Amino acid sequence: MTELGVVHRSIKRADLALVDRLAPFGVATVHEAMGQVGLMKPYMRPIYPGALVSGTAVTVLLHPGDNWMMHVAAEQIEPGDIVVAAITADCTDGYFGDLLGTSFMARGARALIIDAGVRDVKTLTEMGFPVWSKCVSAKGTVKATLGSVNIPVVCAGAAVNPGDAIVADDDGVVVVPAEWASKTAEAAKAREVNEGDKRAKLAAGMLGLDMYKMREPLEKAGLRYVD
Amino acid sequence: MTELGVVHRSIKRADLALVDRLAPFGVATVHEAMGQVGLMKPYMRPIYPGALVSGTAVTVLLHPGDNWMMHVAAEQIEPGDIVVAAITADCTDGYFGDLLGTSFMARGARALIIDAGVRDVKTLTEMGFPVWSKCVSAKGTVKATLGSVNIPVVCAGAAVNPGDAIVADDDGVVVVPAEWASKTAEAAKAREVNEGDKRAKLAAGMLGLDMYKMREPLEKAGLRYVD
Amino acid sequence: MTELGVVHRSIKRADLALVDRLAPFGVATVHEAMGQVGLMKPYMRPIYPGALVSGTAVTVLLHPGDNWMMHVAAEQIEPGDIVVAAITADCTDGYFGDLLGTSFMARGARALIIDAGVRDVKTLTEMGFPVWSKCVSAKGTVKATLGSVNIPVVCAGAAVNPGDAIVADDDGVVVVPAEWASKTAEAAKAREVNEGDKRAKLAAGMLGLDMYKMREPLEKAGLRYVD
Amino acid sequence: MTELGVVHRSIKRADLALVDRLAPFGVATVHEAMGQVGLMKPYMRPIYPGALVSGTAVTVLLHPGDNWMMHVAAEQIEPGDIVVAAITADCTDGYFGDLLGTSFMARGARALIIDAGVRDVKTLTEMGFPVWSKCVSAKGTVKATLGSVNIPVVCAGAAVNPGDAIVADDDGVVVVPAEWASKTAEAAKAREVNEGDKRAKLAAGMLGLDMYKMREPLEKAGLRYVD
Amino acid sequence: MTELGVVHRSIKRADLALVDRLAPFGVATVHEAMGQVGLMKPYMRPIYPGALVSGTAVTVLLHPGDNWMMHVAAEQIEPGDIVVAAITADCTDGYFGDLLGTSFMARGARALIIDAGVRDVKTLTEMGFPVWSKCVSAKGTVKATLGSVNIPVVCAGAAVNPGDAIVADDDGVVVVPAEWASKTAEAAKAREVNEGDKRAKLAAGMLGLDMYKMREPLEKAGLRYVD
Amino acid sequence: MTELGVVHRSIKRADLALVDRLAPFGVATVHEAMGQVGLMKPYMRPIYPGALVSGTAVTVLLHPGDNWMMHVAAEQIEPGDIVVAAITADCTDGYFGDLLGTSFMARGARALIIDAGVRDVKTLTEMGFPVWSKCVSAKGTVKATLGSVNIPVVCAGAAVNPGDAIVADDDGVVVVPAEWASKTAEAAKAREVNEGDKRAKLAAGMLGLDMYKMREPLEKAGLRYVD
Repeated sequence: MTELGVVHRSIKRADLALVDRLAPFGVATVHEAMGQVGLMKPYMRPIYPGALVSGTAVTVLLHPGDNWMMHVAAEQIEPGDIVVAAITADCTDGYFGDLLGTSFMARGARALIIDAGVRDVKTLTEMGFPVWSKCVSAKGTVKATLGSVNIPVVCAGAAVNPGDAIVADDDGVVVVPAEWASKTAEAAKAREVNEGDKRAKLAAGMLGLDMYKMREPLEKAGLRYVD
Repeated sequence: MTELGVVHRSIKRADLALVDRLAPFGVATVHEAMGQVGLMKPYMRPIYPGALVSGTAVTVLLHPGDNWMMHVAAEQIEPGDIVVAAITADCTDGYFGDLLGTSFMARGARALIIDAGVRDVKTLTEMGFPVWSKCVSAKGTVKATLGSVNIPVVCAGAAVNPGDAIVADDDGVVVVPAEWASKTAEAAKAREVNEGDKRAKLAAGMLGLDMYKMREPLEKAGLRYVD
Repeated sequence: MTELGVVHRSIKRADLALVDRLAPFGVATVHEAMGQVGLMKPYMRPIYPGALVSGTAVTVLLHPGDNWMMHVAAEQIEPGDIVVAAITADCTDGYFGDLLGTSFMARGARALIIDAGVRDVKTLTEMGFPVWSKCVSAKGTVKATLGSVNIPVVCAGAAVNPGDAIVADDDGVVVVPAEWASKTAEAAKAREVNEGDKRAKLAAGMLGLDMYKMREPLEKAGLRYVD
Repeated sequence: MTELGVVHRSIKRADLALVDRLAPFGVATVHEAMGQVGLMKPYMRPIYPGALVSGTAVTVLLHPGDNWMMHVAAEQIEPGDIVVAAITADCTDGYFGDLLGTSFMARGARALIIDAGVRDVKTLTEMGFPVWSKCVSAKGTVKATLGSVNIPVVCAGAAVNPGDAIVADDDGVVVVPAEWASKTAEAAKAREVNEGDKRAKLAAGMLGLDMYKMREPLEKAGLRYVD
Repeated sequence: MTELGVVHRSIKRADLALVDRLAPFGVATVHEAMGQVGLMKPYMRPIYPGALVSGTAVTVLLHPGDNWMMHVAAEQIEPGDIVVAAITADCTDGYFGDLLGTSFMARGARALIIDAGVRDVKTLTEMGFPVWSKCVSAKGTVKATLGSVNIPVVCAGAAVNPGDAIVADDDGVVVVPAEWASKTAEAAKAREVNEGDKRAKLAAGMLGLDMYKMREPLEKAGLRYVD
Repeated sequence: MTELGVVHRSIKRADLALVDRLAPFGVATVHEAMGQVGLMKPYMRPIYPGALVSGTAVTVLLHPGDNWMMHVAAEQIEPGDIVVAAITADCTDGYFGDLLGTSFMARGARALIIDAGVRDVKTLTEMGFPVWSKCVSAKGTVKATLGSVNIPVVCAGAAVNPGDAIVADDDGVVVVPAEWASKTAEAAKAREVNEGDKRAKLAAGMLGLDMYKMREPLEKAGLRYVD
């Protein structure tokens, strides 16, 4: 349940070995392998291009303009975790900067996903700590009101449970429920198997119309060609 | 007419030699040369900086969340074309990724302009296939409903007819009607002729107020200086 | 007062030596040192990453789709100035390009902050003239209606008086009233003094919870830990 | 062609008797009868609920913050016309108020469709002159720069040619090309024929699943029921 | 789990008698009673003012531009239900009109909550069937791709499980987990008990500063009064 | 200066008799009389149509998600005041409901202008207490962090000083600096003098082209008529 003022210390994380298998597929493939669910809204963008991570979710729910619980969350981080921060209402404030980034990295966090703003992006980029956020904002926050850590949250339109697998790259952020990690990795792998073959055919000029045998269904659907 | 379920195979493309002359002027100059019309909305952004292309439009109209017609459009591509994709309603889905990009490149397409999302942006960047889009989204699409290829469309606020010249760079995307390509190239050239001279004067500290003889009209308009 | 059709030639600029001290702290630290006020909206983004500037504000108020006053403003620029451009209503047009950029640089301007669009961003980037703007747009403007130069304006949600200190970097843009420049620099310096120490502690694994002595106030506020 | 500075006095209007037949169907039905094309973006909202109009388009293209051409357009209005106003770039200014409304009504205009702002909405509501707009704004405009009247425009994402039929109600605004007015009216009528029967069945508790015979295709598509 | 292509026929609904107790408190009070969680984004607006409903959630997950599952959902409606419709990606299409409204009412539905568009709003208003939606759009949808019914969804930023209690009025939409319905009703009642007394005091001119005894904590927080 | 933690008790209010003269002109006319400055962004909308007020500004600056200072502001209200609430960063929370509304009314406030959300809009409407806001949201706020009362603020893009005259109606909200109230009333009156005459002429079919003598300047500007 979504409850304020609680920190859950014991969460069941997706198996990290499994989670590590997900990143190389990339977000688009993992999202397809999931059956096209679990994606965060496309306004979530990385602070620098090229980052590709997967990890297990430590969730945090924060109040608008208040990052107190970020420090509480830091203590719950284990190596391999990705912190997923949701806000109880839309907010653009910069909840996170290079000091918290230093702390999170020291705890073993791989990334931050936050449905709000981030600051010190130049330093965070130099540190190589990737953040996916709604925006960049220098505006700091107060530390006055309780939120929660490791409760189910909705972050950028996606439901996230503590311990879920998170995959993030230049295409966005996808959430893989912990119990789906294994089958998602399998499905993603299956998708990739024929990709090299397909790419080669397309590069050679073969059309998707033929490769995917779409001409007949298109005709059945009524497609007309006019010269 | 905007009609669904039709593919026009014979379109009259702007002369490619003319179209090739447009790119070097850049979008801002071409847009001015057009008389300040034909520009797509500024939310259309390139997936990587520095790309500069011109080409002839192959248009495609798609349904929200459905990229079936992208494959139909691929077959209509000729070398020098730029695919311009419009959606019947606002949609952020990732209609296009590296496989379609491979296919489009193999067909000779120079770029994709899409009023929706794109994915696999890292790979597309590595491939050097430029895309101007509304957003980046890993979310894939279905292939279930017919749209059309090579009909007039409205893409990001601009009317595009098949065969029109398209110019795109870091400043945005402009549409040059096929029959305007020649005079637009002339007008753009005329604009550029004195630019070097102007730039030199401004760099030397001359003011636009003097160079453009604005002081008198400003005074007539009533501008007051206060010390 | 906000009045149209006026150019104030004599403005009291913040002391440039003081202003020069502000940039190295960065926007986030200056904003904190100000007491968390004076920040422009986070939609203001630099046209290229890594720029960091401070300077004194020359303000300009423009009409939608009309950049006439930019040329009037150019004459009022002194070395060390940053032009801050506000529009009387929301507008995305590209008010500023490489020619005006050349002129502004020649006059000694360090940057442009504009609550509207900018164009020729590739050339401006090559010139090393930084612009923070709401968007990029190739759409040019007309020169028909008077605005004002060096009057108080509201730019991207922040009140700016001519002569105020402006600091801008990858995190955004902050306005420091001229009479606050000195104490803000002091406060920013004070904030930085212990930062190295804090960073070292956090990097060593110390928690903010302990470093900032938050455990007691969190407990008082009612935070519960659940295993 | 989209050209600035031109007024086309002779346009071919859709037959008004045909156009008058369209309004009673409402926008949703007309849009379906068109094949789901021609709809303006849903941000276009009426200034008061309950208005329902159809008419022939007099188009006008305006500059941001400049309503000069509204007065030029007024002269081109004939009884039964609806003025469709597009702006060359996004603008929220109030281009139209009760004085222009009085003038348009006197000329026989039935409504205004404007991809920008409107003001004096209380008075316009009392006058019974309906306006569909992007927003309401008290901000007035200047009269300094030429646009055009009766050229093809893109208004709120829809292409409009002078003389096209426009239908607008609480659901939005749809554009029916002049040459489609007749067949669209027929198609709309055909859609309505069985609606009463369908409504009665649904009101009696019959399911769309059965009325539209969807159970088999759903099963074929793989829908699973779980108890 | 969020899975496509599944209909759960047996869901555990919150006790309707309890749910009926929630509506009179209104959304703002219920949301406070919940501990300030469970609210949908404020862009969700009613199609007419004054509606106030509570009911049990039947959830449906739909594809962009495709309302096929609405008909599947209709069969799962029981008297007292409110249908909560989520889309797998942002979409403004009009998924629901007067025919579906007739069907839903006949099945006993009290309202529709949809994170997308609705149409036929005039008729739905006349029917007295309330809808809270992201927008109004005449654009219809296709029926081609499977979604799911009665799975957990995220609708307008709020997590909704089938059977949860929904309360909606002019202030928005709040989700009360089924197992929280009882204690939320109690908490809401407790909040209301002293409201009449408070309102009387405030109406008599007493200040919240005194009524809530805020002067001391404000002083402690450092508030300064300046004459 | 914008400073947090301060309440200014002695402010110089615009003369209320003058302020009372402004409302009947309406916002559009007052804004024109001001020289087209001082208008808040058009996203500020009234919670019910038809309200028309003017008053003197009591300003309040609040923290995101925190309405503590609303209670502090209440004490500073004098009859004839309008409270103008700005937030240090974008926030949609419902800072104000019927209890605060009761208190504000008891103190003599005429309206609230808030660049954030409001709740209990049905009750506020029944009470006849008008609010112009960015949105409606049931989400409540905390009371933990200091802001300020009666300092200069930027609200919805407009600079407001305590004591300024505020005019608000269905067209939006305009700020008249206290020292401009008299001349603005005069200018507004002058604008209205000939309006009746103009309206009569336009209603009789006279064109603005002729009434405003626009034909010659349009011709000079190069307008071409095509048959």
